[in-house]
This record gives sequence, C-alpha cells and structure tokens, in this order.
Amino acid sequence: MKNDGVTKGSVALLGLGTMGRVLAERLLDAGHPVTVWNRTPGRDTALVERGARRAETVREAVTAATTIVTCLFDHASVRETLEPVGADLTGRTLVDLTTTTPNEARWLGGWAEERGIEHLDGAIMATPSMIGAPEASLLYSGSAEAFGRHRTLFEVWGSATYDGADHGAASLFDLALLSGMYTMFTGFAHGAAMVTSAGVTAEEFAHRSARLLSAMTGVFPMTAKVIDEGDYTGPGQSLEWTATALDTIARASAEQGVSPGPIEMTRALVLAQIEAGYGNENSDRIYEELRAGCPGDPRRGEGPGRAARSSGPHRAGSPPDRPRATSPLPRGPMLEGGCPGFSHTEGDTPWPRFSWSPTTSPGPTPPVPGSPAPGCGWPP
Amino acid sequence: MKNDGVTKGSVALLGLGTMGRVLAERLLDAGHPVTVWNRTPGRDTALVERGARRAETVREAVTAATTIVTCLFDHASVRETLEPVGADLTGRTLVDLTTTTPNEARWLGGWAEERGIEHLDGAIMATPSMIGAPEASLLYSGSAEAFGRHRTLFEVWGSATYDGADHGAASLFDLALLSGMYTMFTGFAHGAAMVTSAGVTAEEFAHRSARLLSAMTGVFPMTAKVIDEGDYTGPGQSLEWTATALDTIARASAEQGVSPGPIEMTRALVLAQIEAGYGNENSDRIYEELRAGCPGDPRRGEGPGRAARSSGPHRAGSPPDRPRATSPLPRGPMLEGGCPGFSHTEGDTPWPRFSWSPTTSPGPTPPVPGSPAPGCGWPP
Repeated sequence: MKNDGVTKGSVALLGLGTMGRVLAERLLDAGHPVTVWNRTPGRDTALVERGARRAETVREAVTAATTIVTCLFDHASVRETLEPVGADLTGRTLVDLTTTTPNEARWLGGWAEERGIEHLDGAIMATPSMIGAPEASLLYSGSAEAFGRHRTLFEVWGSATYDGADHGAASLFDLALLSGMYTMFTGFAHGAAMVTSAGVTAEEFAHRSARLLSAMTGVFPMTAKVIDEGDYTGPGQSLEWTATALDTIARASAEQGVSPGPIEMTRALVLAQIEAGYGNENSDRIYEELRAGCPGDPRRGEGPGRAARSSGPHRAGSPPDRPRATSPLPRGPMLEGGCPGFSHTEGDTPWPRFSWSPTTSPGPTPPVPGSPAPGCGWPP
Repeated sequence: MKNDGVTKGSVALLGLGTMGRVLAERLLDAGHPVTVWNRTPGRDTALVERGARRAETVREAVTAATTIVTCLFDHASVRETLEPVGADLTGRTLVDLTTTTPNEARWLGGWAEERGIEHLDGAIMATPSMIGAPEASLLYSGSAEAFGRHRTLFEVWGSATYDGADHGAASLFDLALLSGMYTMFTGFAHGAAMVTSAGVTAEEFAHRSARLLSAMTGVFPMTAKVIDEGDYTGPGQSLEWTATALDTIARASAEQGVSPGPIEMTRALVLAQIEAGYGNENSDRIYEELRAGCPGDPRRGEGPGRAARSSGPHRAGSPPDRPRATSPLPRGPMLEGGCPGFSHTEGDTPWPRFSWSPTTSPGPTPPVPGSPAPGCGWPP
C-alpha cells in the first residue's frame, strides 16, 4: 500500500471549477485534510488560506491522500489527468464526480480495477450553491465497500445514494433524471410560447402549468407499472387517441406561428408505434419506441439491453413480446452497440440527430374510423 | 327570439360519446331539462331512462333549448352539424366543448356572431370519470355575458374558468397545458428507457423522477419572469452549458441503445440559439426559438403574434429585441400565417414534421473553449 503514512480521511481534490472549489470547502469545514490541484493555477488561493494544501503536480496530489476526488471538465480530461499516475493510485480510492456517460464511468471502473484502485463514480444532482445542504443529491455507484467507508464523508456534500455495483449506474440515473427535467422544461417553454402568442403572460401560464404538471407526476408510478409488466392492453389513453390530441396541439401551435417541434417529437414516437400495429394499445408504449433504439439502425430491436419490437401486437395475456434486461449491462472497457455511426472509442463520430424535413411530411393524421377524438370523443 | 316557450335552463346536448353522455348525466342530476341528439342512434337509452328527451334531428334538439352544448368528434363535425341549423340557433347560446384549435374556435365565434348566436368555446381538462368533481377543470372563452349567466350550470361539470373574450383562448390554454404534459411524459419515458436498459425497474425510476420533476415545476414562475421581461442575460444556466449537458445525455442514451430523440429535440433548439449568437445567455431562450416559428419558414421571425429573432445578442440593459404581442390575436374567420405549407382552410395540407436524418448529423458539440461542463464544470 502506497498510502502508508498518509493521514486517514485525507482527500485530494483534482479540478477547482466552481463545483470543485465548493466540494473542497465543505471538506475543509468538516475537518478533512485536503490537498488541491488544478490544471490552471490560481484557483486555489482562497482554499489554501482556509487550510488546504496546494499540490504542484497531479502525482503530488494523489500521493498525499487515501481518497482522490476528481471533478474535471469531461471524461477525456479525467483520462489525461489520471493515466500518467495510474501506478500511484494503486491501493487508493478514486471517486470521479466528473459528468460522464455510463460507458465512460464503466471504462474508468475497468481501468481502476486493473490497477488495484477502488473506484466509485459519482453524479452531482445539485448546483454549487446547494452543496452541503440536504437538498443536494449525489449518486454513487461502483465499489460497495468504498461507498460504505466514505458515506460520512460524502454526506458533507449532501444526501448520498448508492446505485449499485455497475460503475455506470449513478451516471445513468443522473442523466435519465435530467433527461426528464430538460424535456419537461421544453414542454413548458412550448406551452408558454403558445399562450404568449395570444398576448397572455408566461407568468399566468407558469402557475397553471406547474399545478398541472406537478399533479401529473403522480401518474408516473402507474406508467412505470405498465412499462415493467410490458402489457399495454389495459385501460388508458390509446395511441390512436393520443395521435389525434397531438395533431390538434401541433396544428394550434403552427397556427399561432409557434414551432410545433416538441409536440412533433412525441407525435413521431406515437405514429411509429401505431404503424407497428399497436394503435389500440396504451400510449405508454412510446417507451417501447424509445427503448427499441435509434431510427434507421439496422440493429434496432436486437441485442442485449434493448427492447425488440415485434412486428405486431402481442396477444392479451401472452408474455411481453420483447426480451427484458434482467441484469446490469456487462461492466468493462466498452459496450458494443449504441446508435449507428456512434462509437465511444472513435471519439466524436456523429449519430442520428434531430432535424426538420419540411418536404417529407406525412401531413396531419387522418381520423381513424371509430377512433376517439380528444375530450369529447373520449373512448367509450 | 325563437327560444320563447322553451324552459329556462334547458340544455340540448349534441354528441353522446363517453364524454357527452357524462356531461348530460351531470345536467340531469342538477335538474336541468336535457334534450339529447347523436348522429349514430342508440347512445341515448340510459339518458332517456333518466329523463332526457330524445331528439330525432339536430333541428329538433336545438329548438328545444336555450343553451346548446356540442361535444362532437372535431371542428369539421361541428360545422357539418350546425351549419344547416344556423338560423334556428339565432338568439340562443352555443357552448362548443369539442376539442378544436384556437383558430377553429375563432372561426365558430365569427360564424355565430354573424347569426346573432352567443358563443362560448370550452375546453375540458378532465377524463369522463372526473366530470362532476372539483378536480375537473373546464376552461371557457368568448362571450363574457354568456359565461356569467351559465357559470352555475358549468359548475355541475367541474371548476369553470373564464379565459377572456378571444374565442380561441380556452382552447389555446388547454392545448398549451397539454403540450407541457405530453412532453413531460415523453421525457419520463425516455429516462425510464435509459435506466431499464441497465436492468433497473421503471418503478424505481418513477418515484425519483416524480420527486425531481414535481420540485422543478417550482422553477416555472422564475423562467416565466425571464420570458416576460425578454432579458436572458441574468444568472442561470447558459445555452453553451446546457448544450454540453444535453450532449452527454444524448451520448449516454445512444450508448445504451435508447433513441436519444427527446433530448435531441431540446438540443436542436439550444444549438439554434447558440448559432444565433446567444451562447452565453440563459437557456430559457429556447422559448424564443419556439416562438420564432417554424424552421425553414421564410416568414420566420416576422409578423404579428410571433417573436422576431434578431441576428445577434441584444446589449444588456437594452429593451428586448423582439416585438411582443400585447393584445390577443385578431378574432375572425382565419388568421394568416402558421407554419409553411400549413393552412387550415386548405384542409389536411402538411406542415414541417419531426424526422430523423442520420446522414446530415453535425455530430456531438465540440467543447467550446472556456465553456463550462455540466456538474463539475459549473460556470464560475
């Protein structure tokens, strides 16, 4: 063990952006010996005044502590910073709080394991000003032992949740939660654009929207139950019905001169599932459309970790028509798969992007005979 | 007045889908004389048993009441049903609860006015099973007098909100609120698809997502203030920062074999605003991108009811760089405008639709020098 002689509870913090500096401050507040390093000098003045030790090099920093916390720009900067000191990290604990994808976290987990480094990936669900308050939520995954030993330390930053041994889990949960958040804000902005186009203030809309959306999050557990069971034949709003509602919203948006982009995105998912033969099933099926993978991917619907989309509706009472992931994805350097043209290892290779194609439009959905309209046409 | 001799408080209800039948039931419960009509016979049996009067024709229905409520499939069916009896409606009140676009409601308002028919457009924010409970929210717009006179009647169905004289306002508010709701559900489905691809249940995700999103609706009033003031130079997450975060989410989604569609949609809005020169401004600016109109529309950014997008950032402290709608859009048969290729009067003409183009991808956003990364790279 190369950490003999190093004070117990000592932490090296690499990366002194606004977040890194706040994390270091809370550790100093809690009495931890803290060594700090930043690529660009001059960020550590206030911290050194408060008792932090300044390291001139990465090696000096990591050999000064039993726990190394990285809070850097991205996965590439983590690799660039740590790879030259891999041997010095052996026997220590590495906690990477840098925002990365799950596969990047898994790659680091594999790299650390090969070198006898305990690794935890962390995800910070908080702004810097929230750090230290119980509202700050930090997620961790990787070594359960390391999490247990560091729990008290982690709690100086906020609530600490352990998301399992899959090194990618904390990042995946973080990004999945943020996806819902960003998408919700876009929906709010779209609704605000619709009403303000008729002279109503966004403020008036905000209160009504917050009330409705906040209440509707109460439906998530029911939706989740349908998703987990994989049976979309129960009661609820059908895809056909939703398509009609979304078409009305998109038309209203366009009439008001507001881009219908956000609603068209949902509508595209709904129409794809209708086309696949599921029109009378529950609208929660948009999950299956997303899960099936990237449009245009020849591997779509195949392989582990993805949902196969069958060519038609499954019979009521029959088992779900797609394989379900029952265990975490394999840990290791890199997963196969991802969207066509995209490969992590190749760097910045493009993958399918959202775009508008005004010429290839299918036009509004024609009313389906016998299908219900929104509101008054509610299904019998 | 052709309604002489008709019992006061009498209602004719046209359209006996599930929603129409429930509306009629609540009116009967409240002691209103109710005449019912439906294009397809056989839907009124239970209502007639409870005391409703069956009308064999639309004319027979509308001449039997002072208030005519329509709850039909769509705007086209409303016109088809009412146009032949326009003269019979003179002096009566028409409440159209059919889900239509604001322009369709405005058209009906104009048509009614020409014939001396009082008109209210209504929007039902409830499922049929909610009708009669205070949680059922119904919005109305058009004649303020008619709303005042019918308020008690409307309250047998749920809470009644008057949204102003613009006949399109109730529909616009309804559809704008629903846009936020559907978009939020899509974000939830995307997050669920991300975590379930690694073996986590949607149920576990649902509770955490509901907690986060419900809390984040508390930010809407702050966002609305920024939007209403049109100044995006204040504190908050910059567009550059958001682009990096969205890029990480999209990459993680693609790596897990989950379509990144929902996050790519938001990302497209963010990148367009960065391209327009606003990268350092607040991410609430995606509102401006939506408000500016349809991508590819040569009229984009021009004309009443839309936001002009200037070619570069406005100076801090200067007035907002776009005209703001200060009054409701003109009421009348049809508004000019809407997205290219879309015209209500031409029927089912297409307008720009969401699509995927795997080949024209710009690839992930390259990190902008000096720009912050999510989480650890939080802007100083």
